[in-house]
Parts: sequence; C-alpha cells; structure tokens
Amino acid sequence: MDPRPRIEFWFDFTSTYSYPAAMRVEALAAAHAVEVDWRPFLLGPVFRRIGWEGPPLFIHQAKADYVWRDVKRRCRLHGLPFIRPAAFPLPSLRPLRVATLGLGQPWIGGFCREVMHAGFGQARAIDSDEVLRPILQRLGLDPDAVLADAASDATKVALRARTDEAAARGIFGAPMVFVGREMFWGDDRLEDAMAWTTGGGDADPS
Amino acid sequence: MDPRPRIEFWFDFTSTYSYPAAMRVEALAAAHAVEVDWRPFLLGPVFRRIGWEGPPLFIHQAKADYVWRDVKRRCRLHGLPFIRPAAFPLPSLRPLRVATLGLGQPWIGGFCREVMHAGFGQARAIDSDEVLRPILQRLGLDPDAVLADAASDATKVALRARTDEAAARGIFGAPMVFVGREMFWGDDRLEDAMAWTTGGGDADPS
Repeated sequence: MDPRPRIEFWFDFTSTYSYPAAMRVEALAAAHAVEVDWRPFLLGPVFRRIGWEGPPLFIHQAKADYVWRDVKRRCRLHGLPFIRPAAFPLPSLRPLRVATLGLGQPWIGGFCREVMHAGFGQARAIDSDEVLRPILQRLGLDPDAVLADAASDATKVALRARTDEAAARGIFGAPMVFVGREMFWGDDRLEDAMAWTTGGGDADPS
Repeated sequence: MDPRPRIEFWFDFTSTYSYPAAMRVEALAAAHAVEVDWRPFLLGPVFRRIGWEGPPLFIHQAKADYVWRDVKRRCRLHGLPFIRPAAFPLPSLRPLRVATLGLGQPWIGGFCREVMHAGFGQARAIDSDEVLRPILQRLGLDPDAVLADAASDATKVALRARTDEAAARGIFGAPMVFVGREMFWGDDRLEDAMAWTTGGGDADPS
C-alpha cells in the first residue's frame, strides 16, 4: 500500500494551460511526496454538454489574444518552449486514446509530456504517426501494437467514460486537479493543490 | 517628475478577484518601487458589449461554485477575510462614481480597499450611506460633498468614459493590470505584472 497522498490530474492535449501544468506536475508532486493519477479526457464534449460552443477562453477575440500571450509568458517563466499552433483546437483524440491505455502504467507521464511538448512546444501534429511513433519507441513500447489498441472500441469506450466522469464531477475546464473532492483549476493553481495535500492550504474554508 | 514606473489597475467593486488584488496591489507595488494608477470602471457594460449576458465565470453553475470556493481559498492564503455576498453582482455603481472622483487623489487607494473589504470581507451593501459615509469620514473627507459630487452628471460621464476606454483597450475581465501596453488579468497575475515593470518578465515574448 502506498501511504503517499494522490492527486488526479485531468487534462486534454488541446488545453493550452494543460501544457505547462503537464510538464510540471510530476516534479512538483514528487517534491511534495505526492503521487499523480493522470486523467486524460476530451474537453470539447464537456464544453458542449455545458452549452458552450467552444473553449470559453477563446470565444472573444481580445480574450483569446490575451490568453495566447499569457500562456507564452507563463511558459517562459517556467522555462518551457512555446510555439502557438497554426490550427486550434489541436487534434487530441488519438493521443488521448493512447494516454487512456497508459492509465496506471509507468510510461504515462513521459508520454503525456512528450505529446504536450510536441503540440505546444513545437507546434507539431500530435495525432500524426510522425509524432506518436517515435514517442512510443522512446518509451520502449511497440508503436504498432499500442496504436492498434488505441483505435480499438474498448479504448474508445474507456475514453468516453472518462469524459462522462469529467462532466459528472463538475469539470468545466482543464487542467483540473482533484485533491480528494477539492478542485483546483489551471496551471496557476498547481502549487495550491500540492499545499492542500499536506494541509498547507489550511484545510477546509467551508 | 516621478521616475518610478507606473501600472494601471483596472477594477470594479463587484469583481470577485478584484477584491484580493485591490487589497494587495499598493503594498506589492511599493515593494517594487512602482506607482499604481487606480482605474475604476463598470464591468457589466463591458461584458454586454462583448455579447456576454453576465460574468463569464458565473454563467455555468459548477464553474460559479468553483470560483466562489477558489476566491475564498485565495483570500485565506493572502490573510484576507471573505464572506460570500448574499446577492451578486454587487451594486458597485455608486462607489465606482466616488472612486472616479478620487482619481489621482491620495485617498483613492484607501477608499477602494475599504469598499472592497466591505463588499467581500463583510458582505455589506457597498452602495449604502451606512457603508460609504464612515469610509469617507475616516479618509478626512466631507461625505455630503463627495456623495453629491459622485451623483453629478460630470461624474457619471467621467465613469462612462472610463468604461468606454476599458472596452476600447480590449479589457474583458477584472482586475486587469496594464504595464504600458502589456496586460495582466487576475489577482494571480499581480506578481507577474510587477516583475514586468523591471524587465523581470524577461521583456517581450513576441
């Protein structure tokens, strides 16, 4: 039994602020002796269920312009490369299905960081064989087998179930960190979430 | 001539995250040898001009619930009292008109902090004589004269002009800090804004 506290890290590869958060979360968690449960899900269907036609941060032009600039600034603060993708949202379905296969596997963190870096650090096509196969190879996996598995009905159903769960738990954006039932939204709340695991958030402000 | 860098702090007394930001901004600015130009404006008309029917953070119930909890947590981290107001948005028009009179006056910071504290730290009616008169008295002002001035056409026009300027400059939420033309949205970007004034934001991530 692992006595260390666990957090859930809910994200989508197309979520801008999920990028710096995904790159940082495991190192930050390790520094707090916390374990990370990666929770890939599809943000688009969650937005549509709420009734939003698209990412709420990007519907208004001035706000979208601001968010792109802010993400770039924040990545710079964290020492992360950032290139604004030519097309947005990113085609995250296929890598999310791979991530769904990786739940509880030792390679999930590495896989997620590599895909995030390809999408927002390099502005590459994250659903392409050119991106996904070398990542899987570097992780010591068999790309043919994993990508076939990722395209299976079982995996599609599993990712859809995660997305249903996200909506049911009140998730309205990404990244979303759960510490028990306590929610923390955004890369800029990662530190607050970690503090919460040790009572550093000063327990319950009910 | 004041050689110190200046920032503009755009806010509305009904903006939840403007509360901790308004309480913190002058102390933080002083620590960075930065001057604060307070910029009161009406957030509602800016939202309506964008096409939003209300505060975008509060339209969806799960998101609204989250934001109230997050504001409370953040206030606790900053050592600020927080009481969720029974009615929201807050009736900010009258105190915003007073703040408009205070532009460039030595009392504006104190006035804004007291109104913010009354609204979100004590859940009191911030447009009431019971709240406003004692605040003005404590600042050494004549409540009768100031409140009459605040209700004048000239003041109404001046606040409306600020609100027009906010929309024209692409403001889509509050608090919004400008360092020159660089925008920083939210209480959680105050530190980034201060760093930007001294090049600590690593200048322009163009």
